[in-house]
This record gives sequence, structure tokens and C-alpha cells, in this order.
Amino acid sequence: MRLRALTKVSSLLIREGNNRMDLEPQKVVDEILNPILNKLYTSHTKAVDYKSPEELKQIIDFSLPDQTTSIDLKDIKQLIQNTFEFTPSTQHPFQFNYLYSKPDFVGVLGDWIISLINSNVHTYEASPVFSMAEVELIKNLAAIVGLGEDADGIFCPGGSYSNMMAVFLAKNRCIENEDIKEKELVIFKSEQAHYSIDKAATLLGIKPDNICRVSCDKKGRMQIRSLRRQIEGCLSADKKPACVCATSGTTVLGGFDPLDEISEALSDYGRIWLHVDAAWGGAVLMSAQHRHLMKGIERADSMTWDFHKALNAPILCSAFLVRSAISIKSMFHVYDSYLFHDSEPLRQYDLGRKTAQCGRRGDAFKLWLMWKVRGRSYFESRVDKSFKVTSEAIKLIKERTAFWLYDENPAFWNVCFYFVPEHLRHKDGIKACSEREKLELQAITKKLYKCLNKDGRVLVNYAEINGDPPFLRLIFGNPELSSEQIKDVFDIIESTGNIII
Amino acid sequence: MRLRALTKVSSLLIREGNNRMDLEPQKVVDEILNPILNKLYTSHTKAVDYKSPEELKQIIDFSLPDQTTSIDLKDIKQLIQNTFEFTPSTQHPFQFNYLYSKPDFVGVLGDWIISLINSNVHTYEASPVFSMAEVELIKNLAAIVGLGEDADGIFCPGGSYSNMMAVFLAKNRCIENEDIKEKELVIFKSEQAHYSIDKAATLLGIKPDNICRVSCDKKGRMQIRSLRRQIEGCLSADKKPACVCATSGTTVLGGFDPLDEISEALSDYGRIWLHVDAAWGGAVLMSAQHRHLMKGIERADSMTWDFHKALNAPILCSAFLVRSAISIKSMFHVYDSYLFHDSEPLRQYDLGRKTAQCGRRGDAFKLWLMWKVRGRSYFESRVDKSFKVTSEAIKLIKERTAFWLYDENPAFWNVCFYFVPEHLRHKDGIKACSEREKLELQAITKKLYKCLNKDGRVLVNYAEINGDPPFLRLIFGNPELSSEQIKDVFDIIESTGNIII
Repeated sequence: MRLRALTKVSSLLIREGNNRMDLEPQKVVDEILNPILNKLYTSHTKAVDYKSPEELKQIIDFSLPDQTTSIDLKDIKQLIQNTFEFTPSTQHPFQFNYLYSKPDFVGVLGDWIISLINSNVHTYEASPVFSMAEVELIKNLAAIVGLGEDADGIFCPGGSYSNMMAVFLAKNRCIENEDIKEKELVIFKSEQAHYSIDKAATLLGIKPDNICRVSCDKKGRMQIRSLRRQIEGCLSADKKPACVCATSGTTVLGGFDPLDEISEALSDYGRIWLHVDAAWGGAVLMSAQHRHLMKGIERADSMTWDFHKALNAPILCSAFLVRSAISIKSMFHVYDSYLFHDSEPLRQYDLGRKTAQCGRRGDAFKLWLMWKVRGRSYFESRVDKSFKVTSEAIKLIKERTAFWLYDENPAFWNVCFYFVPEHLRHKDGIKACSEREKLELQAITKKLYKCLNKDGRVLVNYAEINGDPPFLRLIFGNPELSSEQIKDVFDIIESTGNIII
Repeated sequence: MRLRALTKVSSLLIREGNNRMDLEPQKVVDEILNPILNKLYTSHTKAVDYKSPEELKQIIDFSLPDQTTSIDLKDIKQLIQNTFEFTPSTQHPFQFNYLYSKPDFVGVLGDWIISLINSNVHTYEASPVFSMAEVELIKNLAAIVGLGEDADGIFCPGGSYSNMMAVFLAKNRCIENEDIKEKELVIFKSEQAHYSIDKAATLLGIKPDNICRVSCDKKGRMQIRSLRRQIEGCLSADKKPACVCATSGTTVLGGFDPLDEISEALSDYGRIWLHVDAAWGGAVLMSAQHRHLMKGIERADSMTWDFHKALNAPILCSAFLVRSAISIKSMFHVYDSYLFHDSEPLRQYDLGRKTAQCGRRGDAFKLWLMWKVRGRSYFESRVDKSFKVTSEAIKLIKERTAFWLYDENPAFWNVCFYFVPEHLRHKDGIKACSEREKLELQAITKKLYKCLNKDGRVLVNYAEINGDPPFLRLIFGNPELSSEQIKDVFDIIESTGNIII
């Protein structure tokens, strides 16, 4: 059957009427977006201008009107400018608080296109280009990880979601096995693993007692002896060890669990799902020089890898990868016929089959565009440079008596240290401090964090671990940072410290 | 303590060097974004230019390079233009396939700002403005729904996620109750409710047998008698009815479950969580004229409301609302200290406490901006106009003998109908057809759907229900559609139908 030639549809030629509620996109770009871009990329004021909710309410009227009489582009511009001004700047070179720095502008462009196209990446039919870009990405990522020919994966709205997928698949594999169907399932994570594992397990019905916390060494790495002990305890209680969630790049110390040793250990206890939460640390896989940190990753059953963290795609952009395609393809058996019309071989591009989402934003596309435009080697050079920047920072800290590093030689870009008041500087680090001195350091860290935030030139975080007093945690994930800038940052921290004590 | 005045940081004055990998944002806007916007908003070609994966691979090189030598804006522009060209256009007036039409450009702008700001809406500290905008929205939405003073909520990455939250909270309430802790939990949904309920239940460990499907009347509404029977069956099997998931706006027919009657019925069986999936139909609450369709919603325990569907925020923008704030605030008890530093009263703005996500995109902000700029009454007028457009479409279908409406008087904007070949037009609708005739109609619908998709001027969907042959389903959610345009659409469908039979 041949359709007649496409005829013109007269009603489409009518330009849609402009009414008072219409915006001219071109005008919005000229009058709102361009000035913001111009300011954002040329000037650096403060990293943060922190306001309390009450103060913010004085500046921005958050209330939502029932009616508006007209649209004033100037008002919109002002709202948006205020939104930028009072949000801690992720663009700012002195933003060291978060696991991400300035978003890649190619990624931002990709994200803008995703919003403008506004398609839903559940079926090939609805989103052919986004679907194919995502499939291509998954293929390339799985190859970089080394998960083998049968690997598969899906992009998820955040690393917590990806981790949830892992726990679900691990649970599924147990439930399918008749012998262990009725046993209580247990999952294992290190005590420094991310709290999203606990949330995922709770969500999926794992009892709190069955979320086992394996102890870490001083660099934040899971201790194999402790893992073995916990698994053996679980087995002797006639429970089923369902999943070990290892971490590549812990949130606080940036520790990398020894994946090869974990795999080795697990092989002694039958089939246990090994998930690796590399939301933060996965970036090292892009680097020939640093991927040894994740040696053994190719033996994992699944992996979380966030590209909105160390590789600077805009938020969110999280990949969930699995060794065995069948585990993810068969995770649900419900597909509504109103949506999923495709038969094989198109079905492989119906990504909605591999997730608990229905509507999906095309988050993979921004990463695909970044990679397409810049090449994989760009990611490698970013990673290598950030390691260099971190080394530089460590060196500068060691030169100053005012700072004590928590880990003298961190594996990743997490730099954790104390600002130490003069009368304690002669001591041999935190371990040599009395309880009273530790309390003093705790108070100093928290006060310093607050003051730095208020000052606003440098944005830092603090964290605590192992019962030690909290320390400052700075993330050196911005490869563009110069030695001079790093020095300035430590000058600001040290001088602020000297003022507050 | 007073900090010294803010001193200039010399290293920030250095403009970051441009290397070959840098893009000038301004140039990208001029050379890529503006031409795309210009084309997108002034011309209407086809609604879809459908290509198979093999064809698409010939046009777009999806492969990801290891290295690139330079960035050519023209190449990027071409990639993006192709992405638009071969993605079914959600901007196109003749797109009737999906539950969303042209995204609101104010919403698109909001989404662009979210990407550019790139902040994470988990803590007030990280995202003060986005957090407060979201809290304000939740307050306003809960008031519109009528959930009472103690209501709360959170924006989620999609309606499926919001539905999952509901099932989780319902389950939690049961688990907290010692008496029913050990009983099997059962959830109820109508047979026409969305498949995300099944996915959520499966994810959360509800056994497949304990997902009960309540039958519907011919307008897609849950039948109370069937609901009662199912609940009583569950109780007599000594299981616990945990949650009834009602629907406001089913996916296929646009049916609204009778919420008041459901609440009435539930009150006979003790405490059962009532969740209303109004992902699609929630928009009627904005309209004084049409909100009666959701009469009784104020008695629900929770509700899903997607603003990326009927109210045209860009994807994703889904609100999850609960009657009782405590249920969502206490859903998890794990918060990592590296992230959540705030104490009361700031804590109310730490939205990461109310979800299983950690990193969150600021999806609420785009809706807040739309509302701020346009006022609530804009949503009302959109909704009222779309109802008028739908009535017009129904009227035009009834005037033609070539079409049989599946529901003569649909409650919402879902218009479901058959194209009927001439020799069957004398019959009294689908119920009067023989099995052979039904098979013929099934073949015609599927063929017509394929041909219309290939033709590309009109984008439609098909669906089936109740064992009847599949029909075309068109969504009339675009309030800007003129009578002439609607007539053209039916002309195209009818003439294509006449060609293929």
C-alpha cells in the first residue's frame, strides 16, 4: 500500500495567536538568559551569599499569585538573578563543598535541549534519538568497566535510585531461587558507605537488623576480615547474604574498597550479589593512570556511576550497569499495552522496560553530547588533572603547621583536615589529643565551617567519622584550579581560623 | 566575633584560560540555540518523521569517539537539529499520542535555569531558593487539594516514583502497627489503573498475588461492589488490606474513580491507606468548573499529581502529597551527617529527608516559576479550554459515520474511537459486532496507527481494554487547538483509513 503524497494541512499554516500570556522565546533568551550567562561566566563574586529563610523571604516573594495581569520580563529576570545570587554557586572555583563543580557547558546545552524537546524516554517510538544515544552510552560504559558482552544498564534519576536498582536485582535473584525463598535476606555495606543503601534496603523491605555494617580501615576501605565475620554470622543465623554493596569513592574520605579481595572473599560463600557504588569514584575508570583504584570492578554484578559528580554533567546523570542483561530485562513483568507497542528487535530500545520509572527524562543525552563533542580522552584528562590539583592541595596543607590532615595521603579528591589552634600544633595529630582537646577541635571545626559559609569566599563542608572530632572536608574536583588559587583558599581558611579561636 | 571585611581574592581575578575545549556560552546561544528556537516556534512540518533504528544510524553517528581534535559548533548544531527532527514533536499541535503537549516556555526557562544553577535540592544549605520555592508550592497545592493543615509533600522524579512513595508509606503504617506486623499486605487498584502501581508494589516486596485488581465500569471507574468484595476476600484470608490506589484520570479512558464512594466503603474496614494517582487527572483541581470530578480527594491519605502532563511543565515535574506530614517526615531514619547539618527550624527546608533520593534536581522550581509568572488562574483557563477542545472533538467525531466513539461522553481529554470500514458502519457500535468483525477492526486500528505514524502529519496512539478490539486514542490536552485544526485532524485520519482498508 502506498500513501498518497503528503498534503499541506491548511490549519497548520495559521500562526498561533499571541496573547498576553505568550512569551517570545527569542526575547526571553536575549533579555534574560544572555545577561545571566554573561555574568555567570565572567565574574566571580562570592561562592555563597548565605541567607536564612527569614532573610530570603524579605528578598524573594515566594508566594504564588492567583492571578497576574501581565508578564514583565524584567520581573522574571530579577527573580532568576536572585535565585542565582542566593544559591551556593556550583560555578565558583572556590566551591569545595559538593561532589561536583562547574557543570560542563556542553552538558548544560544537552540538558537544555532535553527540556525543549520534552520527550519521554520510555519507548523507542516516543524518543528514538535519546533511546539510541542511551543504548550507545551504556555499551561504551560497560566496555570501559569491563563487564563483558552480556552487560546492560539504564540511566536513573540519581545514584540513590541506581543503588536501589542493585538491591532490588540482588533480592530478585534470591527470591527466584526456591531454596532460599523464605530466608531473611541480608545486605552488607561498609560503615562509611552511602546512606542511600540503607534507604534502598528499607524501601525494599529488608529489616534494619539485616543491614550489616562492615568496619573500615583508616582510609575508609571495607575490611575483609570484618566482612567475612559478618557473612559467617549471617549464615550461621540461617539467613541469606543477598548483596554486598562495596564503595568506590566514599563520601567522606574518598576511600576505595578493595574489590578484588572482596570478590575473592565472596567466592567462599556461594552466590552473593556484588554491587559497587561508584557514584563518586567511578570517574577513575576513565583514566589509565588511576583506574587501578577500582581493580576488580569487572567482577561486580552491578555498579552505580554518577556523571553529575566527578565528571560534571549537570544534575542528574546516573548510570546503573549490570553484568547480566537478563537480570534487568526481567526485573518487572508488567508493561502496559497502551505504551509498549514495539516487538523485537525494536524492543531493545524500549528503555522503560528496565526500570521502575515510567516517564523518564533523557538524562543520558547530555552525557552522550559531552562525549560526542569532547571525546573520552577529555574525561581522562579532567580526572588526571584533578588528581594533580589534589596532590598540590595536600602538599600545601602539609607545609602549614595550622592544618592536620586526617588522611595524609588520600586516595581520591576528598581532602579532610583540621584547623589546629596554636597551642595544639606541637602535638602529633588528632590521635595524640586528649578528650578535652578533641572537644575543642570539634567546636573549632563547626565554628570555622559556619564562619567560612557566612564569609562566603570559600564554600567548604565538614564531616566526622570513627568517633573522631569533625574535620573540614574539601573536594578538589575542579581541574582548572591553579596553584595560586589553592594557596588563596588555604590562606582564607587559616586566617579565618585564626580570627575565630 | 566580627569577621574582617571581605578582602579581594587575587587569584579569582584571573580569567580562566580558554583552551580548545572551551565553549563560549554566548556563542552557543547565538549559533545553536537561537536558530533552533526560531524554527521550533514558527514552523510546523510533520508531527513525526519516524525512522527505524537502522535508518537513524545512517543519519546520526551515535558512536562515541575516544578523541576529538576540535569543537565545531556547526557539527553540534547539526546533531541537535537531527535530534529534534527525528524525535516525535511534543511541540506540534497535531501530537495527540502523549499525555502532554507543547511544554510551557516559562517552564522550559525554569528548567534551563535549574540545569545552569546545577544545585542539589537535598538541604536548605545547598539550595535555599529551590527549597523554599518547593515548600511554598507544596503548601499551595495541598490547599488546593484540601488536604488540611497537617499536609506535606515532595516533588519526585516522575509519577511512578510518587506512587511508590504512597505504597511505601501505606506499608510503613501497617508495619508500625504491632498487631498486623506479620500479616501479608494487600494493595488494591482498578484493572485500568497505571502499571506503575504494580511496579511499585513489586519493588516494595508485595507478592504478586496480593496486588488485587478491582473491576471497572465502562467509563473506566473502579466499581465499589468489586472493591468491597476484594477487601472482604482479603480479610477473610487473614491478610491486611494496606492500600487502595484509586485513579483520577486513567491512562486509556481518562476515567475518574468515585473517591467519595471509595472513602465511604473503606471506612467499613478499619484503617486502609487511600492513595489517589491523579498523575494525569489532577489538573481538574485547578478548575472550579471541573474539580467535581475529584470530589472526595480531600479524604485521601496521599496523592500523585504530575505537572509535566496536563499542565505542561517540562518533564519531569511530579508532586507527591500526603495528608499527614509525620508519615513522610519519619519515612526514613537515616541521614548522613556529612550532608544534613541543619537543626530546627531550618530542617523543614531539608527536603532530602522526605524521599529515598539523595541528589535531587530542582524540578519544583520550573512549576513555581510558571505559577509565579502566570498565576493559578492561567492553569484554570488551560484546563477549561482543553475540556472545550475535547467537546468540540467529540462533536466532530459524532458527525462522521466513519468513526465510533468507544465512550460517547468521556470524562476527560482522552478521546477513544474506531475507524470503521464502510460495510460495518450500519452496525450499532462495537458491541454489535461479531468476533470476526472485531478482528477486522483490530487489524484496521493497528494498521491505521502505523500508517498515520509513517505519514507523520498526525501523531496518535492506540490502546485496548476490556477485551474489546484496540481503538485509536487521541489526547486533547492542547487548549490552543482551533476547530479548523481539529477538523483537519479527523480528515487526515478518515482519509488515511479509507486508503488502507
